[in-house]
Order: sequence, then structure tokens, then C-alpha cells
Amino acid sequence: MRLYELSEIVDKKFSNGEQISENIINEIKNIVSEGGFTGMAQINPIAGNIEYNAKKIAKYIKYADSIGLDMVVFPELALMGYPIEDTIDRHPFIVEENMKWLKGLAKITKNTTALVGFVEPRDKKAEGKRFYNSVAILQGGKIQGIVRKSLLPTYSEFNDYRYIEPSPVVGLDGGLYNGVGITICEDCWNNKNFFEKNLYEKDPIDELHKAGAKLFVNCSASPTRAKKEQLKHNMLSFVSKSYKTPLIYVNQVGAIDNISFDGSSRMFDENGELIARAKSFEEQFLIVNPTKKIGKIYPLTKGLEKSLTEQKVFTLEYESDLERTYKTIVQGIRDYFNKCGFKRAVLGLSGGLDSTVCAVLLADAIGAENVFGVSMPSKLTSKESKSDAAELAHNLGINFTEASIKPMVDTTTECLNDLFKVVESKWDDRYKTSFTPDNIQARSRAMFLWGISNEFGSCIPIATSDKSELYMGYATINGDMSGGFAPIADVPKTKLFAFARWMNANREVKNAIPEAIILKKPGAELAIDPKTGKTLIAEDALMPYEFLDEIIWRIENKNEGYNDFLETEFVYEKKNNVSREQKIEWLDKFYRRMSTALYKWSILPPSVLVEARSINKSDYRQPITSGRINYKGVDVNHIDSALSL
Amino acid sequence: MRLYELSEIVDKKFSNGEQISENIINEIKNIVSEGGFTGMAQINPIAGNIEYNAKKIAKYIKYADSIGLDMVVFPELALMGYPIEDTIDRHPFIVEENMKWLKGLAKITKNTTALVGFVEPRDKKAEGKRFYNSVAILQGGKIQGIVRKSLLPTYSEFNDYRYIEPSPVVGLDGGLYNGVGITICEDCWNNKNFFEKNLYEKDPIDELHKAGAKLFVNCSASPTRAKKEQLKHNMLSFVSKSYKTPLIYVNQVGAIDNISFDGSSRMFDENGELIARAKSFEEQFLIVNPTKKIGKIYPLTKGLEKSLTEQKVFTLEYESDLERTYKTIVQGIRDYFNKCGFKRAVLGLSGGLDSTVCAVLLADAIGAENVFGVSMPSKLTSKESKSDAAELAHNLGINFTEASIKPMVDTTTECLNDLFKVVESKWDDRYKTSFTPDNIQARSRAMFLWGISNEFGSCIPIATSDKSELYMGYATINGDMSGGFAPIADVPKTKLFAFARWMNANREVKNAIPEAIILKKPGAELAIDPKTGKTLIAEDALMPYEFLDEIIWRIENKNEGYNDFLETEFVYEKKNNVSREQKIEWLDKFYRRMSTALYKWSILPPSVLVEARSINKSDYRQPITSGRINYKGVDVNHIDSALSL
Repeated sequence: MRLYELSEIVDKKFSNGEQISENIINEIKNIVSEGGFTGMAQINPIAGNIEYNAKKIAKYIKYADSIGLDMVVFPELALMGYPIEDTIDRHPFIVEENMKWLKGLAKITKNTTALVGFVEPRDKKAEGKRFYNSVAILQGGKIQGIVRKSLLPTYSEFNDYRYIEPSPVVGLDGGLYNGVGITICEDCWNNKNFFEKNLYEKDPIDELHKAGAKLFVNCSASPTRAKKEQLKHNMLSFVSKSYKTPLIYVNQVGAIDNISFDGSSRMFDENGELIARAKSFEEQFLIVNPTKKIGKIYPLTKGLEKSLTEQKVFTLEYESDLERTYKTIVQGIRDYFNKCGFKRAVLGLSGGLDSTVCAVLLADAIGAENVFGVSMPSKLTSKESKSDAAELAHNLGINFTEASIKPMVDTTTECLNDLFKVVESKWDDRYKTSFTPDNIQARSRAMFLWGISNEFGSCIPIATSDKSELYMGYATINGDMSGGFAPIADVPKTKLFAFARWMNANREVKNAIPEAIILKKPGAELAIDPKTGKTLIAEDALMPYEFLDEIIWRIENKNEGYNDFLETEFVYEKKNNVSREQKIEWLDKFYRRMSTALYKWSILPPSVLVEARSINKSDYRQPITSGRINYKGVDVNHIDSALSL
Repeated sequence: MRLYELSEIVDKKFSNGEQISENIINEIKNIVSEGGFTGMAQINPIAGNIEYNAKKIAKYIKYADSIGLDMVVFPELALMGYPIEDTIDRHPFIVEENMKWLKGLAKITKNTTALVGFVEPRDKKAEGKRFYNSVAILQGGKIQGIVRKSLLPTYSEFNDYRYIEPSPVVGLDGGLYNGVGITICEDCWNNKNFFEKNLYEKDPIDELHKAGAKLFVNCSASPTRAKKEQLKHNMLSFVSKSYKTPLIYVNQVGAIDNISFDGSSRMFDENGELIARAKSFEEQFLIVNPTKKIGKIYPLTKGLEKSLTEQKVFTLEYESDLERTYKTIVQGIRDYFNKCGFKRAVLGLSGGLDSTVCAVLLADAIGAENVFGVSMPSKLTSKESKSDAAELAHNLGINFTEASIKPMVDTTTECLNDLFKVVESKWDDRYKTSFTPDNIQARSRAMFLWGISNEFGSCIPIATSDKSELYMGYATINGDMSGGFAPIADVPKTKLFAFARWMNANREVKNAIPEAIILKKPGAELAIDPKTGKTLIAEDALMPYEFLDEIIWRIENKNEGYNDFLETEFVYEKKNNVSREQKIEWLDKFYRRMSTALYKWSILPPSVLVEARSINKSDYRQPITSGRINYKGVDVNHIDSALSL
């Protein structure tokens, strides 16, 4: 359709910062002149950078007006960026600023109505929090009205109720604006017939339906998490269908810290049919007409599609979620670098899977020329590891060098041995065997990487730890878990294998990752197994990754616990003989290690949320001093005897 | 009074794990036999360690019953510990366990009514969150009723609404239990006549008064923060006075991660007069009689007293808050170590103020024999610094040694120089002057400390950064800001000077801190000032600490901003000539450095909240990518021209 051909040209020009020609504007204007068209402005804001966001919004408002749209809709808190967290509470000045810019935006509106998300200060003495999460209705040079968010998500990555007061009324003063029922994100997520369990009493959509809404508009900032998108699609479709009312859903795109928003804004008709869908992980201005059912459905990133059935059990079939995983992380890296003003990354290339996957993601996110891979072999590093790392770097086209950590390890070891002797003279409790030598290696490498970061402009080192190993605390503080950013901290190890293969098959340059890296058993090459005399393999120190990742998945997605695990069969057990003693040993080890890993989780660098649940502190918080929770539980007899003493 | 003499013996025996003799029990029983007595069980729980907490609760329930008390009251969530954060959401198993233990506790009750805080699971399909924050009324072997928290603090260190559903009714099913109006913590904090601004619509106390309450009981977990205690006292007194109803307030004591609870449980009579107050920062079982106005007022830690007037402006008069500061941090360290199972600490002793204060606090919290101070001089370390460090260690009686970092710095520098040459061949942007040499020193020291921690059992290294420097990001990643715990991360530098003097005057061993350390200008001794040829002083790199600390105080306590600072006089300006250009330079530097310090705040080790507001992530969260906020703001003309382009 001509409208979308032209719109794609416009999108391109916008993203290149070019002017849109009069011809194009006139042609689009002509197409939409019959009326009833709305622009879905799927933008990528910077949290707190109000001027940047306002200029972007202004650009789209003017464009919408120039082509004669009825309405242009922006995401939740478009002017401030979402989430802004406690910032507005501590620095209320920026809320005043966002009001000034909002008034400025109102002034430039003409015929087209613009829905712009902003932080609204409340009366200083009013009961409750100091702010509303609001959408302003701008038109004819004025703020025509304000809609406020009623339902405040306060769980996982959301903390709305920390600084936002829920609106007592829905929509515009409890009603509609020109027949449109306007809601903000979570306001749309409480349908009592769709959800088995609801989080709130109120259903704003239902109230707006009763007020006679002819169209629902929802301004959102809804992050991508595994398995969430199908739910979102089904829910939005259900809402529009059950109220026989078309629905326009405009979502934020881009990442803010750990949270990657996928965009994929949509329009459904009154039968719940999808009429339009914007691209995923890209800014886009998509024109739709809800009455005439005009729209275009752009392909969805795989993993976001509605056909993905809800996962009831753990499976190693990651294929369907890998494109989403890739785009989520690449956007997460790119936006973190861009928004913080970083340009370059340096990382250790061990020839192992974790650093390899990180290198590929970085090359794709910030450009191969901006990535420096450093192979830092120790005496335990195999020849294969070194050459695999070099081959990978070559295939990716990233900068590469080798730097021996041997002098540092030797000097440090020598210094420490002297020091340990002194300490030992005062303290007993010196370990017979310790992780000190392993950690010296990992920390020497981090010294190199942080050194480069200190010496060269706009460059940060990368923490390469993966989710499985972080769960087990199998990462060195000030070593491999240290960095300015941790790209794969929310990707479990078994998924990383599939992910590496997927990248080899789907990136423009095929098979950049040497097959040997994917086939190799993961191991940090930090220590020798005294039993075998060979380099210690991670699975020996921990447990089989397939088993480990299933525990993690079942805790995060099913809230299962020790006894559930003991009594049910794991996927790994279907293929391998695991004695009950062995299983108990692994489970005990898991809970013991997880409990002492809580501290490490608390100092984890910024990352990207990928899976449905995470240990990232923006998603999950547990007191470190709760490390002695008894996850096995006790029986009633134990309780009675413990309390009767 | 004899009752309290005996009670102190009992407290001592409880804390030593000794049996209470029949004689004492009988004598107390005799005193309280006239009836109407309540025990305030101010306990220190471990978050999630239900068995530990339950046994402690059982001990007090049995004791209360044995002496014939009417009632024994425990703090908020006594059985689970507060806060437990998202843990119960991810591991609902532990909520089931806490129910089992609660039933066990019910069984041991006889005549005395016990009020025990616990996490209550809700019906799986019920609307809202999965849990209530509840208090069980246990008596006669049964759970007689349940009271649920209505007002959920969700700001600063509180996140109740992340996992707790607010109760729609107050008290016991909207009413009283035997004439007693029971509330949980925040439920008591919403008096519309006391607070200028209220956070919630509902006032549970008012509702319970209307239901005819003869006594208010509040189960709390209320942390100590600067200037909060006077408010708490005045508020509780106001409530009891205005409703002409006595009030029993039982508070948790002890620290859970960053949060230090002061105890100081209280009883007020119906005139708002303080009748009883438990000790601060100690477990205690205090027996009171609200009807007969029997109680004992234990001295309050200085800084918690009600006479402390609310601070309206920044001042360097820290004296009144130093005892509270000391006890808050010492308890914070001790409980973190005890609850995590650590025994020993190792820290670098530079001869500077930060590491000195940390050493004193550690010696007092975990015992001098469990502290190892390591002086790690570089070529920039002065002789005085070395001898000051040794003298301090000697005075404190902690273990001490000197270990040169020179070999490590030399080797690292050499290795890095080779590496930098390679990187430079690919990347421009090498800094003319960089912080690399400074950081190598700081990181080498951390290598030593983490090495000791790896090699010796139950030992963690200490991060010595202070609040002023953390605000400015003036701390080295993987260097001085790295550690298992950061004792003074919430104490501003100007307060540390006063604090050091206070410790010299008030600790048992006087003047442990050499005067030279207090008099010395702070400086990291990491680099030479090229202008003077002398070691760089921190205030030259940053700005005068008095000025810096006032900015911080005004942001945190008054929510002021750049323009407020520019237009009003600082305390520092009253004493020193500061040109407007100089002031602007400092303010610009402050906001620039603070914005890039956000990442460092996100990886800060666990710490202790001390001041009214903090940058600790359990108290304050800001997106790292919001580093480009314009804190100066723009004028309307700028907005109009920016948006008209």
C-alpha cells in the first residue's frame, strides 16, 4: 500500500535526521484526507533527558499535523522516559522542567490531537505521592485535558508506586475524550475475564466501555520478557473483541538500563483482529485508521509472535526465542552505550562460550571496530583456546591482541604468599586448598581490561558471566563478573549453546563462531582437577548445566522448591541415570551456592533482562543476610520438638 | 524498681542462653500478679531464618506465660524478619514454612496472648498480591485471630507493595481484640492532624478509636535514620494523647543488610506521656502495664532523643547525632557478619580518615582480634601515613602488617604499557593524562585484600569509601570501593571528622585515633599534583568538603537543585570568599560527577543506611542512562526555539 511505502521513506529520513520533502507530505496528506487516521509514534526516549525527548516528540507532532492526522499517540511517560525511578522524587526540579516542555509542546499543536506522556506534579499538600503518571491531550495550542494512570505495577522491574499516586478516576475525568477511552499501560492489564488472577480491583477499560468508548488508546512502556508477548497479544485482542471496540496500543522502544522495550505497537479492530503492528526494536511512525481498518502488519521478531504457546515445562528447545533474545540484548547494549555516551568496549576472549557470545553481540551492537578482544592466557590456557579466540576475532573483524597475564600472576602470587605467611601467624583458618590462585588469574585479567578502559576514551570493559554461573556464584568478584556492562547475565548456559548456533546461522557473516568453541565443555581454565590432572570442567565443579538450568527455570517460572525438585523428574534425568543421592547432592549444592551468591547478585553490573524472571537487582531483591533460609523445610514433629525445648 | 532489676537479670540470662531460675520467675510473677501487664519483646530476627526466629519467639512466649503476663507483643513480621523483600514471591515455600511454625507457636500458648508478626498467604485466586503482612493473635493453644497491615510503605528502604496486599479492613476484622486496637507499623503513621501531608487516605488508628479501642498496640519494624526518631516520638505521643488512649509500640532491633533498626520500643499513657522505653540497639524484654502506668524509661542513644529539633538548614554541628551514628553502624556491621556467617575483616590502612574510622568501627563490632589492617604503601605514601596507620592499629589492638604494592604496581604498569601500545595502534582517544596509574595502585591493594579473604575462612575485605566521595564517584572500581561491606558509605566526610573526634573521646580506650590522622587533609595519595609537585589533595580534585556536603544534604533533605544552590548562601561561603565563577565551577562539577557516579552507586557493596536519605540502592534508584539530565534547566525562550525548529 502506497501509504506505507511513503511512511517507510519518512521513517528513514527521520532516523537520518533529514527533511521530509513537500511532495511526500502532500501525497500522504492526500491519502489520509478522508479523515480518521492516527499516528502511532513508537519512540525511543532517554530517561530524564527531557529536551532530547521533547524535540523528538515535537518532530512527530509537526509531521502528524502537516499530513492532517486526527491524532498522534506517544508511549507512556514519553517526555520523561520510562522508568525514571526515584529520580523525580529526589530531583523534583526535573518534573518542573518536564511541565515547561509539555507546555511548549502544547503550543506547537494545531489540528492534530497529540497524546503525550509526562510526569504530573500534584498539589504539594495533597494526600499521597507527589506525582501522577499522566498523558496530556494537546490540541489547538493548548492542554485540553489530562488522563492519569490508575493501576500501578509494583513488582519485578516495575516500581510505579514508589513515586506515583494512583489516579482515583479513569480516562479523562472518569470519561472519554471525543469518544476515545485513553488508558496508560497497566490500566489495560486487568480484564477479569481474561486473567485467571487479577492484581487490582478496578478495571479502567471496563469503566471506559461503560462510558461509551468508541476507541481505546493505550500509551505503554512494556518491556520484552520471555513468553510475555503472546500474553500481551492475546490480552489486547481479547479486550478489543469482548468490548467490540478497536484498540490502539503504542509502546516505547529502546532500552533504559537493564530494561529493553520491544515496541511492536499494535492496532486491533472491534473483532480483536490485528490490523496493524509496528516493527520490533526500531523507532517507527505507523499510520492507522481504526474505523476503516487500515493498517499494516510488520513482521514480528521471532519469539514475540502470538503462536508461541505458553511454556508449561522446562525444555531445551530455545529456537523459538533466539531472535528475540538477540535483538533484546543488542538493543540493550547499544542503548546503554549511546545513552551513557560510551563508544567502545574491551573484553577478555578466553576461547570459551560466554566471552565469545558477548563478543558477537558487542560487534553487532556497537560495531566491530569499537570492540577490542584481548586473549589473556595463563599457563592453564590451552593452545586451542588461544587459537579459537583469535579465529573468532578475525571472523568478527574486531580488534584483537594477546597479552600474557603470567608476569602479573607470578608477582601477585609471590606478594600474596609473603602476606599470607604474616596473616597465618595471627589467624588460623587458612584453607588447605583455596580459590586464591584461580581468582588471581581472573582479577589480573580484569586489571588489564579496566586499565584499557581508564586509558582510552569512552571505553568500558565487559563482564562476561552468564546466568547459570551467576546463580551459583561461579564468577570472580573484581574478575570476570566485573565490568561496565554484563550482556548475557540473564541468559542461561544451555540457551547460550543454542544461541551461538543460531547466530552462526542467522548473522550476515555465517559461522563467525568457530565450531570448536560451541563443542567445548565449559570450564574457566583456572584450575587443575586434582583427581584427573586435567583442567577443571565447570560441570564437575557445579553440576550438569541441563540440570542446573531446569532448577533455575522452575524456581523463576513455577516458584517451585527443593521438595518439588526432589519428587519430580528432570529432563536431564530422562536421558541420564541419576541416583537419588546424586540428585540430593546437586540440589543441596544448588541452594547452598545460590544462598552465598546473593552478595554477588547485589554488585552485578548493569545488564539486560531477557528471561521471564531474573536475578538482576532491578527485577529481584533478596536480603543478603537471608542466606540461611532452609529451603528443604521441616516436618511438624521437628517444629513441635524445637519449640518445646 | 524491683521488676526491672529482675528483668535485667532475665535479659542477661536470655542473651547468654542460660536458664531463668524458678526463684526469679516466681518473684516477677508475684509482682505482676495483679494483672494488666504486657511484655514488649524487642527481638533481633534473621530474615528468612524462620526456625531461628521461631525459637526466639517461643522462648519469650513461654517466659511471658510463666510469669503470668496478659500479653506479649513481638515486632512486625517477627517470624520472617523484616524486610524479606521479593524472596517470598519467588520462594513461596518459605511462607508455607512460616505458617507451619506459626501453628507450632500457637500450640505452645496458654493464658498469655501473644501477638506474632508473620507472612500470611492469601487465597491463590484472590485479587491482588499473594500475601498479607499480618499479626497473629495466639492464645490458649490456638490462633484466635489475625490482624493485617493496611498501609504499605513503598518508598526509600521500604517496598511493601511489591509483595504485600493492603488489608481492606483494619484491626481484627475491622475491630478490636479484647478492647485492644492492633496495628502494624505504617498503619500508625497517618494521623491527619499530626502530619502536614499524609500518604494515605485511610487512618487505621482513627477507625480503631471509633471502634472503642482502650489500648493501641503497634507491631513495628522501623529503621533508624537521622532525624527520624524525634518525629516518631512526637507522632506516637500525639496519637496516644489525641485519642486519650495508651499506646504500646514494639519495634524490631538489629540490622538486616543495609537497614539498622534501633529498637527503642515504647509505651505512652493516654496523655501522651512516655511511661516506658526499651533500650536502643539491644534485644530486650520490657514489661509494662498501660492501665497502671508502670514502666521504665531506659536512656535513649543520643541522637534518638526527642529534644532533637528538626534540622532546617545544613550545619556542621554533628555532635548530637554521633552516638546514634556509631551504634547504627556497629550494629550494622555486627549483624551483617553474624547473619552471613562471617567472622573476620581485612582492610587497607592508609593512614587516612576513611580507613581509620572503618578500622575503629570494625574493631568494636567484631572484635579487634578479628580485624587485620594492612598498610600497603606505594612510592607516593608518606612516612607519616605509614606510621599513623601502625599507631592506630596498635591503639586498637587489631592485627597489622605492612605489604608493599610496589612489585605489583611495577609489573602491572609494565604489562599495561605494552598492551596500551597495541591498543593505541587501533584506537585513537588515548588520554594525554589518565587515572590509570592511580587506579593500578588502588586495584593492587584490593587484590591483596581479596586474596586474604580467599585464603582465610569467614573473612571479608572492607570497602572504605565515604558518602561524599561516592557522590562524586571519587572511588576506584575494583579498588577502594570494592569489598564485602562498606561501613561508612552513608557518612559524609565532614561528619567523619567529628565522628573520629567523638570516638576518641567516648570509646573505652581514649584517643585511639592519632590526632595527625584527623588533622591531615584528605587525599588518596594516588597521584602528584602537576602544579605543586605535591601529593594531590582530594579537595583540589573535587571541591571543599564543607561545600560538597551541603549540596548533598540539601538535595537529600530539601530536594533542592542547581538554581537553589546558586542563589542561596552556603555555610562555607559565610566563612570563605567564593566568587560566583568558582561556585558555578563547583556546582557544574558536582552535577557532572554525580551523573557519571550512578554506575558506581549501582555496584556499591552492602552498607549501613545512616543519614535521612542515601544513595544506597536499597534507598534510592536512578537509571544509569539518565546521566544526561539537565539539572540547570532551560528558560521558556529556549524551549520555544528548540521546538520550533
